[in-house]
Amino acid sequence: MSTINILADFGQRIKALRSRSGMSQEVLAARCQLDRTYIGGIERGERNVSLINVERITHALNVSIAYFF
Amino acid sequence: MSTINILADFGQRIKALRSRSGMSQEVLAARCQLDRTYIGGIERGERNVSLINVERITHALNVSIAYFF
Repeated sequence: MSTINILADFGQRIKALRSRSGMSQEVLAARCQLDRTYIGGIERGERNVSLINVERITHALNVSIAYFF
Repeated sequence: MSTINILADFGQRIKALRSRSGMSQEVLAARCQLDRTYIGGIERGERNVSLINVERITHALNVSIAYFF
């Protein structure tokens, strides 16, 4: 991933994986204990996500963090 | 990585890789355009690093992000 694209790439992978598992943003947000609008912002590449939230989200999606990079 | 350990694990891997390449915290910090004390805090697992800084640091260490997870 390049510096420019890391947030967009990360967001797209989350969105793809969430959609594939039939999960709404609401359900994913509830599982992560994060706000739905925050999940939306991540998926659009607008959020510079921290490691703790990366771990929460990947855990909620049942994948390893390495899967995303 | 568990939620509890992700910051400590990440920090330890950065420290190990930085030491292995003979780079001081000062040199790594300069390469990343981050503060040396911030690099120290990351290595001690005290910083909840964001994706953009994860990418800066891994780029400065010449490794892929996936290497860390």
